[in-house]
Amino acid sequence: MEEAKGEEVTLFGFWSSPFVHRVIWALNIKKIKYKYVEEDLCDKSALLLEHNPVYKKVPVLVYNGIAIADSLIIVEFIEETWKENSIMPQDPYEKAVARFWATAAGDGLWQFFITEGKEREEALTSVINNFELLEKELIGKNFFGGDRIGYLDISVGWISYGVPIFEEITEFKIITEQKFPLLHAWMEAFSNSEFVKDTLPPREKLSERYRNVWEAIMQKKN
Amino acid sequence: MEEAKGEEVTLFGFWSSPFVHRVIWALNIKKIKYKYVEEDLCDKSALLLEHNPVYKKVPVLVYNGIAIADSLIIVEFIEETWKENSIMPQDPYEKAVARFWATAAGDGLWQFFITEGKEREEALTSVINNFELLEKELIGKNFFGGDRIGYLDISVGWISYGVPIFEEITEFKIITEQKFPLLHAWMEAFSNSEFVKDTLPPREKLSERYRNVWEAIMQKKN
Repeated sequence: MEEAKGEEVTLFGFWSSPFVHRVIWALNIKKIKYKYVEEDLCDKSALLLEHNPVYKKVPVLVYNGIAIADSLIIVEFIEETWKENSIMPQDPYEKAVARFWATAAGDGLWQFFITEGKEREEALTSVINNFELLEKELIGKNFFGGDRIGYLDISVGWISYGVPIFEEITEFKIITEQKFPLLHAWMEAFSNSEFVKDTLPPREKLSERYRNVWEAIMQKKN
Repeated sequence: MEEAKGEEVTLFGFWSSPFVHRVIWALNIKKIKYKYVEEDLCDKSALLLEHNPVYKKVPVLVYNGIAIADSLIIVEFIEETWKENSIMPQDPYEKAVARFWATAAGDGLWQFFITEGKEREEALTSVINNFELLEKELIGKNFFGGDRIGYLDISVGWISYGVPIFEEITEFKIITEQKFPLLHAWMEAFSNSEFVKDTLPPREKLSERYRNVWEAIMQKKN
């Protein structure tokens, strides 16, 4: 870990949040020492509410007393505050593409997970269309960031372990090796990377959490 | 206008879109020559669909053949591509604050506009809470960007002319001079600025458009 030069970095998070993990991965890549505070989402701490009065959500990063909310904004703050081990593309267009896919890539996935029938079909179409475009972003690269993990990898990182759980629960495979060979290989490479592998939520616990959400929604519908 | 150095810049837009206006203001501040293409939202051009296959929405900026979608991403692209007349704060924390409010500031406003009763009350509470925090960002400044219009001004710029129309239609004043003196003064200063005043959608036409939307929604409910 890098010496902290009197810096105090605290992350308010929650174990299963894909947004919190974006921040964890960015901090890991930058080798920044930080204190982690696990929040109880049913009984949020006074500090969290003070730091994020608008959304009252994790993640919040507190850096020497100043608080920053919103995972992608935090990741850009980390990139700009600690210059070493850059995660952002340098070219303005590549940066724009990374920022675009950072939020667009996951569009429709949750909808696919929690709906049925026609609604689910439509969500799936949109997911497949997006993944076909995303697949092209990986041509000639191991990661979206090139040879190493960058901003877009971090932003869409939860897909690498979240989608397989969605697939297991819904019994529908989206990212097959045949249809999305590059994305499929990326999922393996990303989730096994040194900055990621020890940070992932326990598979069984996360799977149970998603299954509970899914069953609750399906029961309500039927 | 700055000489274009062989650059080709085209903006695909729609006259009433607050997102398109963010891009127009950024281009104006940077003094960039561009071609404007007005889209028919009921019959979008093949070019727009090709340039923004994911969302199929305006604004899209095409720069020397490459297309960028999403208004805030376009504004950051403009800032990074044309360095002069900077619109982004330089400090990472100030940048994070600007990026946060760029999307958070308008939260609840549309909800306030199109709902009634308890739902409207809740939306209004959230709008007021946000504006109270936003008001603080203007202490000691004419614009969020300081002495001149910056990224956050551009991002929330539509508030300066959109909220007065919402207020007129709903017959409820949110941004009073008494409660929000700085925000109130900012609305005047922003909408009258040299980069903005000639770009605004015609007040009567915009008001009619919003009123039609509002009446359609209210009729559906009652």
